[in-house]
Amino acid sequence: MKCDLLIVSAAQLVTAPPGTGPLLGPDLDRPWILEDAAVACVDGRIAAVGKTRDVCAGYPEREAASVLDARGSLLAPGFIDCHTHLPFPGTREMEFEARARGETYASIAERGGGIRASVRHLHATSEEALAAAVRGRLARLLAQGTTTVEAKSGYGLSLEEERKQLRALRRAAAESPVEVIPTFLGAHEVPDEYRARREDYVALLVDSMIPAVAGEHLARYCDVFCDRGVFTVEESRRILLRGKEFGLEPKLHADELADVGAAALAAELRATSADHLLHASPSGLRAMAEAGVIAVLLPGTAFTLGLPYARARIMVEMGLALALATDWNPGSTMCSSMAMGMTLAVTQMKLTPTEAWMAATANAACAVGEGSRLGRLQPGFQADLVLFGALDHRHVAYHYAEDHVRTAVKRGTVVLDRSDRSSCA
Amino acid sequence: MKCDLLIVSAAQLVTAPPGTGPLLGPDLDRPWILEDAAVACVDGRIAAVGKTRDVCAGYPEREAASVLDARGSLLAPGFIDCHTHLPFPGTREMEFEARARGETYASIAERGGGIRASVRHLHATSEEALAAAVRGRLARLLAQGTTTVEAKSGYGLSLEEERKQLRALRRAAAESPVEVIPTFLGAHEVPDEYRARREDYVALLVDSMIPAVAGEHLARYCDVFCDRGVFTVEESRRILLRGKEFGLEPKLHADELADVGAAALAAELRATSADHLLHASPSGLRAMAEAGVIAVLLPGTAFTLGLPYARARIMVEMGLALALATDWNPGSTMCSSMAMGMTLAVTQMKLTPTEAWMAATANAACAVGEGSRLGRLQPGFQADLVLFGALDHRHVAYHYAEDHVRTAVKRGTVVLDRSDRSSCA
Repeated sequence: MKCDLLIVSAAQLVTAPPGTGPLLGPDLDRPWILEDAAVACVDGRIAAVGKTRDVCAGYPEREAASVLDARGSLLAPGFIDCHTHLPFPGTREMEFEARARGETYASIAERGGGIRASVRHLHATSEEALAAAVRGRLARLLAQGTTTVEAKSGYGLSLEEERKQLRALRRAAAESPVEVIPTFLGAHEVPDEYRARREDYVALLVDSMIPAVAGEHLARYCDVFCDRGVFTVEESRRILLRGKEFGLEPKLHADELADVGAAALAAELRATSADHLLHASPSGLRAMAEAGVIAVLLPGTAFTLGLPYARARIMVEMGLALALATDWNPGSTMCSSMAMGMTLAVTQMKLTPTEAWMAATANAACAVGEGSRLGRLQPGFQADLVLFGALDHRHVAYHYAEDHVRTAVKRGTVVLDRSDRSSCA
Repeated sequence: MKCDLLIVSAAQLVTAPPGTGPLLGPDLDRPWILEDAAVACVDGRIAAVGKTRDVCAGYPEREAASVLDARGSLLAPGFIDCHTHLPFPGTREMEFEARARGETYASIAERGGGIRASVRHLHATSEEALAAAVRGRLARLLAQGTTTVEAKSGYGLSLEEERKQLRALRRAAAESPVEVIPTFLGAHEVPDEYRARREDYVALLVDSMIPAVAGEHLARYCDVFCDRGVFTVEESRRILLRGKEFGLEPKLHADELADVGAAALAAELRATSADHLLHASPSGLRAMAEAGVIAVLLPGTAFTLGLPYARARIMVEMGLALALATDWNPGSTMCSSMAMGMTLAVTQMKLTPTEAWMAATANAACAVGEGSRLGRLQPGFQADLVLFGALDHRHVAYHYAEDHVRTAVKRGTVVLDRSDRSSCA
């Protein structure tokens, strides 16, 4: 049969075993690994995956419109970065320095830094300038092997400014091969002017912002920072239920700073994911496992801020579905590399390299509601894949802060080609 | 006046203040930072540094053989990676996985992994193949902004095999713009066949290996792993004194696993540097400060192995000269990025970003005995410098696991040019 793109002779292929749901508990460590592998792509989708000779039996090289020789490369699904704050305005390296000098995230926030600093930056940034910045970041993500990214608003905290972020995101996404899943995070922080009357801000979110954002189809998810000092469980429930009413599925920033019961709320609302979870209680995690909520772990944040890491091994034992993401944002972790996320997961949270791969691909796809379309090299799935200059899947996390990506394919089309670069062992 | 290369209009320049010695204690946090900066290079050396208008007054653009517009870039000395095991044979991702599964560095070593695994790999690797691997690694180092690298043998543990490593290193270095400082580390481990008669291995080092290595000018330094379970203080003293006799200056892997008094030995021998120092005693560190021994910190190793970090802040308070390096090796830290080393230093050891810069440049040069020639942007110094796609020096450590290097200059010549790449903020 004919195909549009045939990738042959990859030294190794790593992906989740056939299926569509998340890999739960110990299944996270049971990937599908193949030597001398090939993938055939037709109409932007994967038509066949397997040993080169088997795939080529059905899709011979001579009938392929394009053939990519993957000798010496690792073939994997493109990373799905399922939690970022991508449309952020400006950087906050001052806070990076302040923390080294002994300040805490909380003390920096108290004197006007943190999320509120980015709110001020956003006010001073036009939609055009923000869209241009996001375009540059999408290019960097692709260069690091990420083919799909979830991206949150949350530095606006007013209808106009949140809309500016989401519109800038949409403009940038329209010009990038990287697929963007937009999330409305108006409930990222209570804005200064509402400090004394926070219930008015919740009312604004519920009455005005959520309907407007949904009406303009600017977001697919509604997220709330449900934690100590931010939004309470009651406020979060109200906001997320209203989002659901308008077709925005719920996600939560849950129990990062303290156990406030956000994990249990995620279970109650059957949220797609609950993220961070550094302080989530065992009962909250158990409820999440029962409700099928994905646990999104963001080790880069704990790393940057010097916080304790989420207890990934306990979560695996509980049968939770773990996903990994970068949390890319200018405050708590300025990093867009999913490979670095895997390194942190393996060295600091004791995930195995295969668990890290599954968490960064198949399970991350489930964390953005795309578990039956993205994140796996499997017939019928969208042909989003990456070639790394590595002979073994472990190499990508093991050899850290190194640029292993050689080629990226999105929807069956080569969108990044650095195959002239040598590998580094 | 004429110059060979004129770099103008850098958004920012960061370097140590004028001088030649290491920055001690609090001086580590007192860099020289300049906006709209320029550097003129003549005959491979820096002829002038300063504000663009001041430099161009003496070296006008029209008289420069080559002009590099550095708008939007950070200009800094090339990194000096002053502790690596660069000529290593093969990788050890199995151990990376084993540690995630609960094994320790010690238990892996006991069952034949660790350094002994690399000793076996080296036996199976030809000098040619090893030289080719080193060439590839030097190219990666340059791409990450490193223009000078110290590189140790130590996976041979026999005259023939150690020589193979050092000869391969020399061959590769001859073809790379990256400057290589070779170190003989025959005392990296006691080889298996000498376990029951370790004094014979020390005798072999002293009687045969050191004279032969020095005779062939294969190394500039002699290093010993002086720690619990490796070489004792007495053995280390004997080996290092013998090295000195043959013109090899002493360096030590000191007190990484336990306090065995290696820091004090480094002071006694006036070693150029003592490295790791995770468990060094206060009295040992104080002796180092008095003797002018550079403390080389390797946070990547602590990060990868989950060990406690060296107490950098206490060392700064003691007035020690701190340097940073990657320790790039296939076992305890597979990373060649000095920028990542700076990120680890800032986030995990609480160095400030400027301290990290000074430790990675001026002080690192002192750790390889080149403090009056390398590591500073200063007239008379070798013109080794790097342009980063960043407006502020903090950005390089802050935005981690990202590729910020745009242009590298070695001995006044552009040896890496990726100025077409956009920056990412």
